[in-house]
Amino acid sequence: MVRLIPKDIKFFDMFAEMASNLGDGARLLKQTLEDFQDVDARVQQLKDIEHRGDDMTHNILTKLNQTFITPFDREDIYRLASSLDDVLDFVYAAGVRLVMYKITSAPPAASILAGIIVKQSDQLTDALARLGKKHDNVLENCVEINRLENEADGVARAAIAVLFEKEKDPISLIKLKELYEVLETATDKAEDAANVLEGVVLKSA
Amino acid sequence: MVRLIPKDIKFFDMFAEMASNLGDGARLLKQTLEDFQDVDARVQQLKDIEHRGDDMTHNILTKLNQTFITPFDREDIYRLASSLDDVLDFVYAAGVRLVMYKITSAPPAASILAGIIVKQSDQLTDALARLGKKHDNVLENCVEINRLENEADGVARAAIAVLFEKEKDPISLIKLKELYEVLETATDKAEDAANVLEGVVLKSA
Amino acid sequence: MVRLIPKDIKFFDMFAEMASNLGDGARLLKQTLEDFQDVDARVQQLKDIEHRGDDMTHNILTKLNQTFITPFDREDIYRLASSLDDVLDFVYAAGVRLVMYKITSAPPAASILAGIIVKQSDQLTDALARLGKKHDNVLENCVEINRLENEADGVARAAIAVLFEKEKDPISLIKLKELYEVLETATDKAEDAANVLEGVVLKSA
Repeated sequence: MVRLIPKDIKFFDMFAEMASNLGDGARLLKQTLEDFQDVDARVQQLKDIEHRGDDMTHNILTKLNQTFITPFDREDIYRLASSLDDVLDFVYAAGVRLVMYKITSAPPAASILAGIIVKQSDQLTDALARLGKKHDNVLENCVEINRLENEADGVARAAIAVLFEKEKDPISLIKLKELYEVLETATDKAEDAANVLEGVVLKSA
Repeated sequence: MVRLIPKDIKFFDMFAEMASNLGDGARLLKQTLEDFQDVDARVQQLKDIEHRGDDMTHNILTKLNQTFITPFDREDIYRLASSLDDVLDFVYAAGVRLVMYKITSAPPAASILAGIIVKQSDQLTDALARLGKKHDNVLENCVEINRLENEADGVARAAIAVLFEKEKDPISLIKLKELYEVLETATDKAEDAANVLEGVVLKSA
Repeated sequence: MVRLIPKDIKFFDMFAEMASNLGDGARLLKQTLEDFQDVDARVQQLKDIEHRGDDMTHNILTKLNQTFITPFDREDIYRLASSLDDVLDFVYAAGVRLVMYKITSAPPAASILAGIIVKQSDQLTDALARLGKKHDNVLENCVEINRLENEADGVARAAIAVLFEKEKDPISLIKLKELYEVLETATDKAEDAANVLEGVVLKSA
């Protein structure tokens, strides 16, 4: 019988924890892209953060599968967990590119993009901390996360355009293009999470 | 209480409008890929169309979140809106590639692919216009959209194979390969929309 | 009235058949990547297997749309069918790359990755054969499929890192990089299927 008891609040705590873990990962990536110090060790640390995120996602989905009454729509819990997980996957994927392609420096656009992911993570953390209590301002967080995604889009496109103009070595071009794309995709996934959040708030309005 | 009233017909109107806006975007892209005239201005226009599409998608999802009784499954409304939005995203993404990579000409395969997207958009517009009334022929539209996706697949693969045979400059190859892939992905997303439509019709049969 | 009768067992049979067809495709791909004999003919055969898989997916989704009571959650049936379909799509996409890029040899990593897909397919076949009966061990299959995905990740990354170190021809690099990525994505999709299966088992526990 126990698992029929909703204990709703725990879902919110779990999501807040996921967003905070994502923030740790995004911050670490940003630092790495700023100074390129200790890249291997930091990417290893990023891997640990990403594994922690995987466990958190898994725990939410397991709880979802074992809970009969949920604090908001099952599909939304599923989508929110999946999209938060995706953001961190792409943050880690950016780190992996540094090691795999032996990238030892990058134009500022890379750390600017990572900075945008940090801001989105902070907005998500803020929104998720309040979701279980009052929904005030959650929609504002969502609007800001969408705005940040647009900003990232512009930064990535400009950086890739410069790359195609300046970089004559195709292999270097391939490496940096992919780094930018992976970073930009992380901001898309944060927008996905924000869109789910917006839906949750609107449904309960 | 007002938002409990279904007003079903509006969902269908909104979808028909989305498909028609998509058609506008696809046609503009096709023209651009045929003559490469005024590329920057036209891609700017495409951006406006894509923004309009974003607003339409957002309106459908907001309405979905505020509507208790929907004319067909909530998940299907969500998926249909998302996949129509995706088609236009990729149409615009193709336009962006022209500007970002300064592509000033392309083999006929590019405009042929855009032409296939136009045909798929017309099939979607046709199907969605009839969805709220009678379902006659909607399945035929779906079959045709799937056939067009297969055609696009063949065109894109052949064009990429030629590219790898003829193009000796890796950077030019990267640009055109991506253009073809983005165009082909747009046709995949149109197929996704058709698959949702097919499900809607079958469930109501 | 007939279509209200669940006939649950048929869904399980259909899924088992899909997994077995996927295994056929994965095995054929593995052989091709081992000896590169009769590539064109084998990829044509792979296409037939992929088309068969499309039909099977279509049949499951049609049945889903016409069935009122399903043996497990509608969304899970949809997701399981889609992810199994995706695995085979990427297996076939790997084959297509061989023909489209005229790849006539590849480092062992390629066939090792295909071998991992074979193992995942066998785990899926095994799990799906038992799903309709007893759930014993299905969770163990899921754990193993996830472990195999991690293994594939490592193999693909190492192979791509070597490629960037050794391959000086950018066009050859593009070809093999994409082959590895497509193979690795197939293992991701198998993990998606395993995650759905895990949810199904946990919900019914």
